[in-house]
Amino acid sequence: MNLDYILPNEWSIIEKGFDQNKVTASESIFSIGNGYMGQRANFEETYSGDTFQGSYIGGIYYPDKTRVGWWKNGYPEYFAKVLNAPNWIGIDVCIDGTKLDLNNSKVSEFVRELNMKEGVLTRSCLVELSNGHQIKLETSRFLSLEIQEIGAIKYAITPLNFDGEIEVTPYIDAGILNEDSNYDEFFWEVLQKYEGKNEAQILSKTLKTEFHVCTGMHMQFELNGFEIPLESKNEILDKSIKYTYKTFVKQNDTFCTYKYGCYVQSMNHNKEELIFESQKLLQKAAIIGFEDLLKKQKLAWSKIWETADIVIDGDIKAQQAIRFNIFQLNQTYSGEDSRLNIGPKGFTGEKYGGSTYWDTEAYCIPFYMSTKDKNVAKNLLLYRYHQLDKAKENAEKLGFTNGAALYPMVTMNGEECHNEWEITFEEIHRNGAMIYAIYNYVNYTNDYSYIPEFGLEVMIAIARFWQQRVNFSEDKQQYVMLGVTGPNEYENNVNNNWYTNYLAKWCLDYTLENINLVRKDYPDDYHRVIDITQLKQDELKAWQHVSEHMYFPYSEKHQVYLQQDGFLDKELITVDQLDASQRPINQKWSWDKILRSPYIKQADVLQGLYFFENHFSRKLIEKHFDFYEPLTVHESSLSPCVHSIIAASINRMDKAYEMYLRTARLDLDDYNSEVHEGLHITSMAGTWLAIVQGFGGMRNFNGQLSFNPQIPEKWQSYSFKINFRGCTIKITKSHKGCTFINESDTDTSIYLNGKEIVLSGNQLVENK
Amino acid sequence: MNLDYILPNEWSIIEKGFDQNKVTASESIFSIGNGYMGQRANFEETYSGDTFQGSYIGGIYYPDKTRVGWWKNGYPEYFAKVLNAPNWIGIDVCIDGTKLDLNNSKVSEFVRELNMKEGVLTRSCLVELSNGHQIKLETSRFLSLEIQEIGAIKYAITPLNFDGEIEVTPYIDAGILNEDSNYDEFFWEVLQKYEGKNEAQILSKTLKTEFHVCTGMHMQFELNGFEIPLESKNEILDKSIKYTYKTFVKQNDTFCTYKYGCYVQSMNHNKEELIFESQKLLQKAAIIGFEDLLKKQKLAWSKIWETADIVIDGDIKAQQAIRFNIFQLNQTYSGEDSRLNIGPKGFTGEKYGGSTYWDTEAYCIPFYMSTKDKNVAKNLLLYRYHQLDKAKENAEKLGFTNGAALYPMVTMNGEECHNEWEITFEEIHRNGAMIYAIYNYVNYTNDYSYIPEFGLEVMIAIARFWQQRVNFSEDKQQYVMLGVTGPNEYENNVNNNWYTNYLAKWCLDYTLENINLVRKDYPDDYHRVIDITQLKQDELKAWQHVSEHMYFPYSEKHQVYLQQDGFLDKELITVDQLDASQRPINQKWSWDKILRSPYIKQADVLQGLYFFENHFSRKLIEKHFDFYEPLTVHESSLSPCVHSIIAASINRMDKAYEMYLRTARLDLDDYNSEVHEGLHITSMAGTWLAIVQGFGGMRNFNGQLSFNPQIPEKWQSYSFKINFRGCTIKITKSHKGCTFINESDTDTSIYLNGKEIVLSGNQLVENK
Repeated sequence: MNLDYILPNEWSIIEKGFDQNKVTASESIFSIGNGYMGQRANFEETYSGDTFQGSYIGGIYYPDKTRVGWWKNGYPEYFAKVLNAPNWIGIDVCIDGTKLDLNNSKVSEFVRELNMKEGVLTRSCLVELSNGHQIKLETSRFLSLEIQEIGAIKYAITPLNFDGEIEVTPYIDAGILNEDSNYDEFFWEVLQKYEGKNEAQILSKTLKTEFHVCTGMHMQFELNGFEIPLESKNEILDKSIKYTYKTFVKQNDTFCTYKYGCYVQSMNHNKEELIFESQKLLQKAAIIGFEDLLKKQKLAWSKIWETADIVIDGDIKAQQAIRFNIFQLNQTYSGEDSRLNIGPKGFTGEKYGGSTYWDTEAYCIPFYMSTKDKNVAKNLLLYRYHQLDKAKENAEKLGFTNGAALYPMVTMNGEECHNEWEITFEEIHRNGAMIYAIYNYVNYTNDYSYIPEFGLEVMIAIARFWQQRVNFSEDKQQYVMLGVTGPNEYENNVNNNWYTNYLAKWCLDYTLENINLVRKDYPDDYHRVIDITQLKQDELKAWQHVSEHMYFPYSEKHQVYLQQDGFLDKELITVDQLDASQRPINQKWSWDKILRSPYIKQADVLQGLYFFENHFSRKLIEKHFDFYEPLTVHESSLSPCVHSIIAASINRMDKAYEMYLRTARLDLDDYNSEVHEGLHITSMAGTWLAIVQGFGGMRNFNGQLSFNPQIPEKWQSYSFKINFRGCTIKITKSHKGCTFINESDTDTSIYLNGKEIVLSGNQLVENK
Repeated sequence: MNLDYILPNEWSIIEKGFDQNKVTASESIFSIGNGYMGQRANFEETYSGDTFQGSYIGGIYYPDKTRVGWWKNGYPEYFAKVLNAPNWIGIDVCIDGTKLDLNNSKVSEFVRELNMKEGVLTRSCLVELSNGHQIKLETSRFLSLEIQEIGAIKYAITPLNFDGEIEVTPYIDAGILNEDSNYDEFFWEVLQKYEGKNEAQILSKTLKTEFHVCTGMHMQFELNGFEIPLESKNEILDKSIKYTYKTFVKQNDTFCTYKYGCYVQSMNHNKEELIFESQKLLQKAAIIGFEDLLKKQKLAWSKIWETADIVIDGDIKAQQAIRFNIFQLNQTYSGEDSRLNIGPKGFTGEKYGGSTYWDTEAYCIPFYMSTKDKNVAKNLLLYRYHQLDKAKENAEKLGFTNGAALYPMVTMNGEECHNEWEITFEEIHRNGAMIYAIYNYVNYTNDYSYIPEFGLEVMIAIARFWQQRVNFSEDKQQYVMLGVTGPNEYENNVNNNWYTNYLAKWCLDYTLENINLVRKDYPDDYHRVIDITQLKQDELKAWQHVSEHMYFPYSEKHQVYLQQDGFLDKELITVDQLDASQRPINQKWSWDKILRSPYIKQADVLQGLYFFENHFSRKLIEKHFDFYEPLTVHESSLSPCVHSIIAASINRMDKAYEMYLRTARLDLDDYNSEVHEGLHITSMAGTWLAIVQGFGGMRNFNGQLSFNPQIPEKWQSYSFKINFRGCTIKITKSHKGCTFINESDTDTSIYLNGKEIVLSGNQLVENK
């Protein structure tokens, strides 16, 4: 953890001073992306120190051979690896024959800034090279929101104590390895190279998956603000193209290289036209020019911030953190493309592989649903709908029949990517999150049509899974679910995980309810779905029976639902009694010791109470919070937000704020000393939830939008906006009270602390 | 399964007819070994078809880097891989310029025989080469029991339809890969090569472990029985040495190559003297000559058979099978060296890695103890005693303190070699087997001195482990053991596995009992051990408390101990109701389906009832057998023998015989289509147990040797011998009755069906 690493600022992430030990961490934190592609904040010029080079294109993956020590039937043969893409940012620099490399130079006045308001990464510093030459270096880089396949770099060098020759070598390189590969394998094959005037393209394809990607660059040069023509010396290498430009520059002149880069790829274009498309785009970018592209960039980000921003007064670090989280979520997923999803590391690293976890359904959808158009959330649902067949195949591999589906734990294309049996085969609660997300979407947007059109098929396949996955216990005379792993992955292969059993029962109930609704109101869809699924009446009865006779472990003594059978056999020593040297336990303890301990990695029973808060009394929620929270070590980034929300809901604002702090600046303060691997993108949605659902108390059970705003003592006020059924509502909470503004023309109503309030169009309602 | 593969024969394993698809299977079945080294039955000459080349030297291993998908704290950094050793058997053959290769030739009258009485492998066949030349090929090979570092080959060729040139190229080759390695890595480094007259040596060492091994060969030649001198053309290659000899042979002449091979190695000699030692040994072998070495071999094997043989009348396949099992056990482990142990595949394959499992303590020790000198069993105990420090380190890695020990699941040098968390960290019952073996040894041999001298230290370290591994359940008000895997590996991470809990309690009791005995009778040892272990009185009290308050899952309804908590929540559908297409379930089902099924891989509760039969009533044992046996799929080779023994003990001879058949010819009939990977060496001890303890009803609880002989209907009679406290007793059972002969001079007594019988020296006692 490093509290002084990033300078506090409302709208920017700023690092001052050059520290070689922080390069890989900063490469993660200052990452840029536009939903279509993303890059770690690698330097353009050569850097010989410790660095983790990473550029990524959404949806591009490689099915790497699964290697495990002990194979189990049902493991995936291949898993989808997020691929490090060809590099187009590189610009090597030589000054009077000496290579520019911050690792070998004296660097001063180093400032790196990620301007989140405008979506641009800048860097400036003074550099003294080993030959004594001093230069000023100023760079700007962004990935365009407007033209998503394009990015732009401005790279300016000013000699400070000499006249001399500057040589710049912009290049594109498809000879890229994955950081996470142990085997030094190349996953890209170069097919074609194109050499043009100040422009080059490499067409390459991924092995096996055959994604074709054209990587291009186009250069322009300026001296003191005036465009200058330069001749290039071209090197066409095996997997890369390098153009070298030389110019003589006088002291205090500024020589500026503009480099436009692009990826165009076969998910969106004909393979045959990729080079041509790249040429068109780069020409377009060059004509618009860097400064005008940047203006468009600022405008596009201002539109995002218009609804997504959260303003916090009185706590600049909290302000910076929440904007960082919102910014990164928007950099990762923009929502137009239902083939893309939100990887746990977004475009900032390769760890975990695959792009899609249940994080999307449980944490990310509410964020995108409230801050963007409803089609964004719908696209995330459709992603799973389109992968339903793969989920059925996956279930079939595990012995399920009759069109039952098990969605994968980790995936890119719908196939399972994970191979720990206790997760792959047993962490099946993920299947319930798929239906919960549909419920959440319909409830929030009122777009019921999603269910007859798409959702019902998914529900039926999942209901079939649950019915087959339970068995009737003669001993208990109830249905039990054996051998599962709950959200708390510090328990494996347990029986009757309460969360999973509860979610399964709810899935069955909700599916039955919607079959009835669709039959009544959407007869055409009903018949189509019945026809596709070959659903039988007997199945409905069986689901009903399971739902009515599901077993839930419960302790009369403690008056709580038990996380799983046998939980009370553990020694229930609370976390505060653990010696600090023992934590984090996942680094200090062997796995068996963790498993037999009572310690909870992330909300499990509490996750269920969060999802289904309206099913339980406040008293019951308090009892469970008091029982489980003291045993929770929060060693998953997805844990504190749920605790923060529940704590706020039971009026424990101190605890809610404590938990909020653990999630808000997780990456900025490098809480777990792992930020160099990439950012915790999906947990950033949890931070947003902690403010909006936690402090703001926003709920939308039964289609009613309600609030119960509270404010942390340290803050003066905070405000956020949400899109709700066509209205944009701004909520501002201070210690004096709260105000609601309906920024649309349509009237709507909300519930405040249980009381209905009408919000007329463009009107402010104040509540003290 | 292939019932007609191996021809029935009392003393030999015979394969007739050449089948290219059976080469790798036969290479396993016809393996030879002498406790010091062993080889698969690879052909001497080149074979271009499917083959698995394997030569192994006891105790030689390589610490291979552990590669797992998901690392857990506590996993071994390295695991000990059994290393494929340099090859000294190779003899390439060219006949008039055409290479001899059975894969490319017409082969007829092929006979392969493993003569178990004499310990020699022979092969003969007629071969027509692609050039039309026909030859007769006759080979013999054995690994000397008398001079363990030496082996000998007789390789005879007789031209049948031509006069021509025969070229033989004996070679030694250290450029050997492991079959089980995915990474094509060499684990041997060649250090020195020595070229002599008809003799060569390669000195090589293993990487990392630096075992130095000198591999040598020495050749002699005969034409029609008369030694002939031949000149060699020598090739000294990077990792191998080849000598080529040419001679002109007339039709029906027999040209014979004698090749003596040897390994001498740094576990037994100075590194510097290895080449010299090899030269000495090879000279010695050459002077003795093949035929006289073979005579010594026959004599040595006859001594082994003298006590180890089991004679079965009326069932030649059963006779062949039991001799095969006894033969292979003796080929694998000869018992002089406490640094060696019994790998699950012996010297016949590489699967599983490591050499030592709990199989040794639970199954193998009784066999070696009864058929060999007691020092053999003692050496197996000392193997673990010498590795106690490593077992303590292993426990420490998992968070145990105060000198607690956890013996590894799989090991070569005392370090853990396995990396599945549910096995490595949780299949801890293996620790109890260490103490059970000591108890078994002392009980059988009456050599109590082992406990004060060695055993007590091991017991104390293991008792400490159990006491730390349980925890007190407030809920149950008893000690529970959470997160274990029992002998039935088709359950993972369960709570309160009855077998493990029972064994743990017994270990504590037995340790306490022996601390008292040693204190009283061996005060010097007692003080030494207390000093080394720093044992405190409080610990003894704690052990006592755990033992007295251990929890055992029990079902009142079924009146049985439950395999683990929650067992009755499963759907208890017996194996006979399973569709045949679903078996073996470990090939047909995904792991989660196996785990939540009731199916038992190998005896678990029943393993405990077998170990501690004297603690339980016959009625109780019957009840448990009837409850668990129908749920057992026996997908471990160690399962049927225990069931056979228990079935016999409760007078279910049909079931006992059925179970015996599943273990006896497991490899000969290739029951599981996996014999090509190597033989199931340790389970062969189980077959011996099934006859001696099962049909013979031999027990030695409380130091009393007792019998309750029964006989399978199909057999006419059977007899076996055991060494018991200095006496050799031969037991013969027929349908008419049974006889006992005490072949020693000392009187002894046994119990027959509960009645004491005195066996005077060299006297026969008949019982009808």
